[in-house]
Amino acid sequence: MSEADESQPVTAAILVIGDEILSGRTKDKNIGYIAEYLTAIGVDVREVRIVPDVEEDIVAALNALRHRYSYVFTTGGIGPTHDDITADSVAKAFGVPIDFDPRAVALLKQRFKGPELNEARMRMTRIPHGAELVTNKISLAPGFWIGNVIVMAGVPTIMQAMLDEVGPKLKTGKQMLSESVRADAREGDIGTELGELAKAYPDATFGSYPFFDDKTGPNTNIVIRSREPDTLAAATAAVHGMLRDVKARLKATG
Amino acid sequence: MSEADESQPVTAAILVIGDEILSGRTKDKNIGYIAEYLTAIGVDVREVRIVPDVEEDIVAALNALRHRYSYVFTTGGIGPTHDDITADSVAKAFGVPIDFDPRAVALLKQRFKGPELNEARMRMTRIPHGAELVTNKISLAPGFWIGNVIVMAGVPTIMQAMLDEVGPKLKTGKQMLSESVRADAREGDIGTELGELAKAYPDATFGSYPFFDDKTGPNTNIVIRSREPDTLAAATAAVHGMLRDVKARLKATG
Repeated sequence: MSEADESQPVTAAILVIGDEILSGRTKDKNIGYIAEYLTAIGVDVREVRIVPDVEEDIVAALNALRHRYSYVFTTGGIGPTHDDITADSVAKAFGVPIDFDPRAVALLKQRFKGPELNEARMRMTRIPHGAELVTNKISLAPGFWIGNVIVMAGVPTIMQAMLDEVGPKLKTGKQMLSESVRADAREGDIGTELGELAKAYPDATFGSYPFFDDKTGPNTNIVIRSREPDTLAAATAAVHGMLRDVKARLKATG
Repeated sequence: MSEADESQPVTAAILVIGDEILSGRTKDKNIGYIAEYLTAIGVDVREVRIVPDVEEDIVAALNALRHRYSYVFTTGGIGPTHDDITADSVAKAFGVPIDFDPRAVALLKQRFKGPELNEARMRMTRIPHGAELVTNKISLAPGFWIGNVIVMAGVPTIMQAMLDEVGPKLKTGKQMLSESVRADAREGDIGTELGELAKAYPDATFGSYPFFDDKTGPNTNIVIRSREPDTLAAATAAVHGMLRDVKARLKATG
């Protein structure tokens, strides 16, 4: 991490661009990956949007998100076909010109020789003025970083390579820490008590994730999160205590 | 389908509610499922948003989406714990009161006897005034339908049961038809020509989905979509013709 500002949370939004996600034809695999990656390095993902390959919609979403969060990460729409309009839409949102970028052209020339670097592939060298390239070794076709917006490919392996490229350059906040506790109780049996803990520990959050254990039946994972190690430890201990109390009570009444 | 208005597209947005999706801890499995389901019955998904368990954010997203699309489908936040605030947020967005709903209480009494129907589980019976219940046979805890907003569970199996319940009651537009053609060419080799087809057939859309075939290398699926069978047939034939021309040219030059 180049910076670690401990005072302010660093926030992010993810903007997924593509008709194929909205039609359900392609199942998104990027949101969960990016969310997990950013959470791990201390960047809080606060919102995700998925929009179609429509310039007006991309520009509107981008302008709504980039003014509200520290970073916006986009995926999709930077390939060689007519519906790949992300780069042009980002240029429009920022009000900057866009043209074939010599750095991007040089990269693609490493991969495509002579007539192979045709009109379609040249689309992938259109980069908004003032952007830094985000390179990847898989396709060589770059994404880019302009202002607080990072534009990445939609193909998961390429997106992941690009995220590895930009990750170390992001400013990060104090990392969110977490503990996971298997409740061995049904969510509805501990919901009230968990709500009371949430009030008692305002600097921690208590997530409750029901799941079904094939052997023992309905169960719950409790995830406690805090940026303060001491708060996390105290809140986690309180969860263990609460679970003991609830189980004793259920045993007595049940 | 209860209605099939052929003149107007019926549109939808999906609103996913939950910190656990934004942190990457839980990977969403509902967006792709709902998108595919709605597309198949002639409802166009135009936008997706994921927001945290924060009332202000849920209300803002809901009000932005429900005025813009025919339907909004929400998932998540209707369980028994303190962070399940979807029902209250929906009531706030619509400006209607919310209270324990006798129909929902009756459903939960089938599953939870006496003290089992505790304060936490009673949260799941809070339904905004004027809403219809959306039942499910798995958990019995209902979702609901108010105005053009359909509120569903986050657990995929339960959400799917709820979607099956509401699906037949939705108004639907003329169904989008599609054909898929394996190009046996790299995306960059056909991008320009595909863009020309998109201009020649304005009532069809041409999606281009690169993939890697382990045996033959980089390849592309082309998906042609139209609501008109004749247009779809003509556009698909044009894609086959284009592919023949491109391959002949590549063979001649390569």
